[in-house]
Amino acid sequence: MARNLLRAGHELTVHNRSVEKANALAKDGARVAKSPAEAAHEVEAVFTMLADDPAVEEVVFGDQGIGSGLRKGAAHISSSTVSTDLSQRLTEEHAKRKQLYIAAPVFGRPEAAEAKKLIVVPAGGKQAVERYRPLFDAIGRATFVCGNEPWQANLVKLCGNFMIASMLETFSESFAAIQKAGLERKLFLDIMNELFASPVYKNYGAVIAEEKYEPAGFALKLGLKDVKLAIDAAQGVGAALPFASIIRDHLVSAIAHGQEQMDWSSIALVASRAAALDGPKAKASSRSE
Amino acid sequence: MARNLLRAGHELTVHNRSVEKANALAKDGARVAKSPAEAAHEVEAVFTMLADDPAVEEVVFGDQGIGSGLRKGAAHISSSTVSTDLSQRLTEEHAKRKQLYIAAPVFGRPEAAEAKKLIVVPAGGKQAVERYRPLFDAIGRATFVCGNEPWQANLVKLCGNFMIASMLETFSESFAAIQKAGLERKLFLDIMNELFASPVYKNYGAVIAEEKYEPAGFALKLGLKDVKLAIDAAQGVGAALPFASIIRDHLVSAIAHGQEQMDWSSIALVASRAAALDGPKAKASSRSE
Amino acid sequence: MARNLLRAGHELTVHNRSVEKANALAKDGARVAKSPAEAAHEVEAVFTMLADDPAVEEVVFGDQGIGSGLRKGAAHISSSTVSTDLSQRLTEEHAKRKQLYIAAPVFGRPEAAEAKKLIVVPAGGKQAVERYRPLFDAIGRATFVCGNEPWQANLVKLCGNFMIASMLETFSESFAAIQKAGLERKLFLDIMNELFASPVYKNYGAVIAEEKYEPAGFALKLGLKDVKLAIDAAQGVGAALPFASIIRDHLVSAIAHGQEQMDWSSIALVASRAAALDGPKAKASSRSE
Amino acid sequence: MARNLLRAGHELTVHNRSVEKANALAKDGARVAKSPAEAAHEVEAVFTMLADDPAVEEVVFGDQGIGSGLRKGAAHISSSTVSTDLSQRLTEEHAKRKQLYIAAPVFGRPEAAEAKKLIVVPAGGKQAVERYRPLFDAIGRATFVCGNEPWQANLVKLCGNFMIASMLETFSESFAAIQKAGLERKLFLDIMNELFASPVYKNYGAVIAEEKYEPAGFALKLGLKDVKLAIDAAQGVGAALPFASIIRDHLVSAIAHGQEQMDWSSIALVASRAAALDGPKAKASSRSE
Repeated sequence: MARNLLRAGHELTVHNRSVEKANALAKDGARVAKSPAEAAHEVEAVFTMLADDPAVEEVVFGDQGIGSGLRKGAAHISSSTVSTDLSQRLTEEHAKRKQLYIAAPVFGRPEAAEAKKLIVVPAGGKQAVERYRPLFDAIGRATFVCGNEPWQANLVKLCGNFMIASMLETFSESFAAIQKAGLERKLFLDIMNELFASPVYKNYGAVIAEEKYEPAGFALKLGLKDVKLAIDAAQGVGAALPFASIIRDHLVSAIAHGQEQMDWSSIALVASRAAALDGPKAKASSRSE
Repeated sequence: MARNLLRAGHELTVHNRSVEKANALAKDGARVAKSPAEAAHEVEAVFTMLADDPAVEEVVFGDQGIGSGLRKGAAHISSSTVSTDLSQRLTEEHAKRKQLYIAAPVFGRPEAAEAKKLIVVPAGGKQAVERYRPLFDAIGRATFVCGNEPWQANLVKLCGNFMIASMLETFSESFAAIQKAGLERKLFLDIMNELFASPVYKNYGAVIAEEKYEPAGFALKLGLKDVKLAIDAAQGVGAALPFASIIRDHLVSAIAHGQEQMDWSSIALVASRAAALDGPKAKASSRSE
Repeated sequence: MARNLLRAGHELTVHNRSVEKANALAKDGARVAKSPAEAAHEVEAVFTMLADDPAVEEVVFGDQGIGSGLRKGAAHISSSTVSTDLSQRLTEEHAKRKQLYIAAPVFGRPEAAEAKKLIVVPAGGKQAVERYRPLFDAIGRATFVCGNEPWQANLVKLCGNFMIASMLETFSESFAAIQKAGLERKLFLDIMNELFASPVYKNYGAVIAEEKYEPAGFALKLGLKDVKLAIDAAQGVGAALPFASIIRDHLVSAIAHGQEQMDWSSIALVASRAAALDGPKAKASSRSE
Repeated sequence: MARNLLRAGHELTVHNRSVEKANALAKDGARVAKSPAEAAHEVEAVFTMLADDPAVEEVVFGDQGIGSGLRKGAAHISSSTVSTDLSQRLTEEHAKRKQLYIAAPVFGRPEAAEAKKLIVVPAGGKQAVERYRPLFDAIGRATFVCGNEPWQANLVKLCGNFMIASMLETFSESFAAIQKAGLERKLFLDIMNELFASPVYKNYGAVIAEEKYEPAGFALKLGLKDVKLAIDAAQGVGAALPFASIIRDHLVSAIAHGQEQMDWSSIALVASRAAALDGPKAKASSRSE
């Protein structure tokens, strides 16, 4: 994201707890700041892309945080996947300081970010979002404005991740049944690729079919965090997500089995274990009783 | 399917309870039979494409059924979406009569069938499947052989339909949350289309976003039948489908609300009602407590 | 049940596939019949108590079945736990033969049956149920008339079994969490006994706490049959049973792990395995993230 | 609880935000304090019984909170139903101040509290729990020590509430099915009371059967809070509670329908609405397909 902002001709100051990461960007023309506050100083907008709610709170409200460094009228653009509650609090706190706040979460794996192929879903005050649109266009292939309230964009991002997790769970359940029937996962994957014709199905389906859960593209532990946030955010607006509840229960089981650092598609192991696929192969029989 | 068999140069005899439908095919060169038995007489293979288990049982085992009309060594190719139990029974009964039996369910809506774009998933004795492969190629764009036991193909078909139903339910839950947050379904659909890039998401997502549930592409009542068959078939091999269980519960609720003839994507109304979207618009708030 | 009918002074003819079981009752004054038809001959009412739908169909409609032996105006009283579909079919078939049909399922374990402590839930034509009330009173401690349609009693019985299964599942989930927290099941059981003060909780809770799953009081395989019948029966009237769907999924997993002959309370092993309690003891920590 | 402590001969100082409530106890011999800190001053132990996590945090860590008022070696006994996370934090914070901390949640409705019939489930350092046992015995009919870590008692309390909520949901689903079948809830309740013979079933079952959801014995909103805490606490120890996930989803739906101040047994309305019981009575039919 930082490189694509530079490529688009923007002046950029970066800060990262890991100095090497920041320095790598210096070669491409970025200025390196020693703290979030310094990075936020005198700029028109500061992006944050962090792991979770506590990390964002620390970077914004901590000593040397953005909150104290950002000038009036400038914007904090938060691309992290965080809770809608935190997003609302950030809205209030930045407003108190006369700063702008935009939530602009993104969809896409690291390769997509590098290739400027992210999907960006910003939300916030209309004028603010329009003013910074060139920045969103600089980092992604498509920008969808999700409302006037920043938290609305966070909900959209959480629902999107929930949609992906649902696909993983559905695949997992089907794969378990297929294997119990003596069929190969690869065959079922090929058929589903023909049917859905989606790169998301293709990529994740292959990971599950081949059981390549390490190294993780997206750690299961983070997946659980996001699904829990989706459930909480939906509850906040008065909606339930029954599928997300099941996914959460299965991810909790996965973590109990030591999978927290595996890719979140390893949720498939939960269905495998429930079907005793890890034990001796069940005798294939379709008799239901 | 019948027309595509004719187009590929095969001799075809057809039978349909509705004489008009059979006669329409006569214009294209098909011979019309007065009964299933007559249609099965002296042919190399007879296709059946029927609504459910009882319909297949009637056409095969009834008076003037295929079972009595088909000669030894010829094949019954069943393309209906039926239970794995019935498929096993057909395997046994045809074997007793020295007839071949192949299950060859298909994926694709009526338009896909007309355009020879079905996905065909046959299973049965290896030699038999190879012998009739030209027929599968004549009706579809891709053929995937699903094992030596016919019921295995039925399981694959049921799991595929379950995958589609899961996508419908996930969309439904997300749409409900999104709307409670004051956002438009169309916006969320556009983002998901950008993310998944799948024609299945695009088509069904649009139906839900626009609430065009009638006329039904696939009646909810039939969807419930298939999901129940998927659960039963998976139980038969020792696997559970937790997502399918939820989908079934929601389809039962849909039918209680009079939706049995609507498109099965109207399962979305269940999530809408649970979130009280049919009532006065909830005040959008993301506060979770 | 047979002995209690004799004790109440009724004349009794018995039939059982196992001759020894029938002869044991002969000592207590019962006449032994060689077939269901003979047992049904010239009596005012014939009770059936059988394992499942196919067994009842065989005994009623088979050669030498009750259907052919029972005289006009006499009653078939079915105490088996069967589907509401079969109960409706029996209603129709017996009516055609001018025979009465009453469904009279019972609640209670074998010891309760011996001690005349069953709960009897008959349903059928009002006059018929009143006429045979002395028989219900002879076998149970309480009789609750469940409507004019026999299948209504079957639904009540299935819902009752579902209520018990729900209690088992709730206990199972709680026990798994409690153990992960380093606490003893026995302690939690004592607290729940103090709270619920129910003999059902006490009995089943102890079985789970002590993991005494064999010999089975009620085989898990039969439990799965009943829960599936409850789901199907509820669907039949337009209601979903989401808890029953989960229980079914867990019982399917239990059977995949070889538990079909264990007591159905061994459903607790499903929650144990999901929480990895069978593996090395998880480090007790209540941190949720 | 306060009155029973006085009755047992203990010296008591009370504090309540509502002065009237505190004064009412003054008539019975309690001293009234102006703040939590004052109430905690110079005593051997201070009980807190508050609505939720934020309330406890305020009373302990706020200005004039217990944390600053309690002397070294004295105990904070927390009877509130709170998260296991907060309980762990309280353990650490009180330890830093050389104060003792015991979690001692209770089971029982207000009437049970008045009648000294609570079930008390304390956990904490062994010596501390034994030292204060006379206080637990003074307020309840039974005391069960739940481990050496205070949060373990909170988990037990949350699981117990989850057990009760599960019973409510099971009843709700069964009642919906029974009514769709044209039967009366009262009849089913009588049968279940005969079967389970539990005062909890009797009380709550009657509330649901009679739909007396107001005034609330325990507000649905608080029920949702507790079920969410149970799920989070179980996740914290590596266990899932699938039933609790469903209950949560249904309580969220209930709140979307305006039931937050009703009794939590009004979760039954969720099953009623799903089965369209609020609409025109479905034609009773047990046909499943």
